[in-house]
Amino acid sequence: MASRSGYRPPKIPEMTVHRLSVYTRCLLQLEEDGVKTVSSQELAERFDLNSAQVRKDLAYFGEFGVRGIGYYVSGLKAELQKILGLDREWPVALVGFGNLGSALFHYRGFSRQGFRIVAVFDDDPGKATREVDSVPIFPSRDLAREVRARGIQIAILAVPPEAAQTVTDRLVAAGIRALLNFAPARLRVPRDVRLKNVDLSIELETLSFYLAKGSR
Amino acid sequence: MASRSGYRPPKIPEMTVHRLSVYTRCLLQLEEDGVKTVSSQELAERFDLNSAQVRKDLAYFGEFGVRGIGYYVSGLKAELQKILGLDREWPVALVGFGNLGSALFHYRGFSRQGFRIVAVFDDDPGKATREVDSVPIFPSRDLAREVRARGIQIAILAVPPEAAQTVTDRLVAAGIRALLNFAPARLRVPRDVRLKNVDLSIELETLSFYLAKGSR
Repeated sequence: MASRSGYRPPKIPEMTVHRLSVYTRCLLQLEEDGVKTVSSQELAERFDLNSAQVRKDLAYFGEFGVRGIGYYVSGLKAELQKILGLDREWPVALVGFGNLGSALFHYRGFSRQGFRIVAVFDDDPGKATREVDSVPIFPSRDLAREVRARGIQIAILAVPPEAAQTVTDRLVAAGIRALLNFAPARLRVPRDVRLKNVDLSIELETLSFYLAKGSR
Repeated sequence: MASRSGYRPPKIPEMTVHRLSVYTRCLLQLEEDGVKTVSSQELAERFDLNSAQVRKDLAYFGEFGVRGIGYYVSGLKAELQKILGLDREWPVALVGFGNLGSALFHYRGFSRQGFRIVAVFDDDPGKATREVDSVPIFPSRDLAREVRARGIQIAILAVPPEAAQTVTDRLVAAGIRALLNFAPARLRVPRDVRLKNVDLSIELETLSFYLAKGSR
């Protein structure tokens, strides 16, 4: 296992990070089922993964397998959670509380992984200065103050596209280090801020491409 | 330009398809701004793309550039929309009408690209047999009948994870050819059905990985 102190990670492909999340979910499932150890082959077969890929992805972070045994399910799960930063709680800001913002607020997956929405921002006067499930809703002019006061590093953007860049600039100025953007807008951020865009209609277009191909 | 009749596409990487959607958005923006022609360099600079990548991606589908001019914005946009299957309307089924399903129903991006949700399915007795914005809401036992009757090929899944596989099996049996899945569940589909998983917490985990790296 990789020791914490001497650990110097190489440059990790984003797809590897993505797959670590998938592996973690598989290991959680195995743990629930009472499975104690698993080989990369068993893992691959059961969850429709590629066993060589599993070994290669894990090799970036250390030697987790034990000869003749495979991986200890709970041990590997805990290591991956640590690597993914899921061994702690991340306070998250949600900006925009329309239909999508509201759905994201209630999305069960976030809090299960340690992402806790601690502040919501929305300029609808009916929503601002109120709260939802004990989480306060602020007008966006309070962004900087609240982000700093609550030590928030991650923000989820669910605002209309025309407001997205302005809100992003404010978040960056307030010290946000990572942004998950749902607005259909291409945002500019400084190099040291991580931006991840989720464009829901692009996902649908990948599907229609393949369907249209058959009829061209 | 590629002619429709003699057109035989090679195997296209999924990331190329994804980028075609991005290019289409850029061209729409240019068209709105009254720009008539654009070079791959200008396109790259303005939208923070890679010009060699743009040329390579487009080359899969034909020769769109004109020497000394670049691309005709409206012409290229129309070609890409055709390639992506956005030159027609796709009737879409939305399965699950909780918070997320409701947000997806109102997501403006879908209808703008020709994806029209024509039937909603939900087993909540309060919702079933009612309608939303003139779109009928059916109980899930009506899935097969309505999917066939309405010629639906694409479904969006926004059901709880424990219901996802059962619903998927029903959709596949009814003739659905492409699935956009928001449920945090790994689904099994036949090889000829396209499945695209959207796991919103995995996107957040990619971000926390990079933030955690700094503190390890």
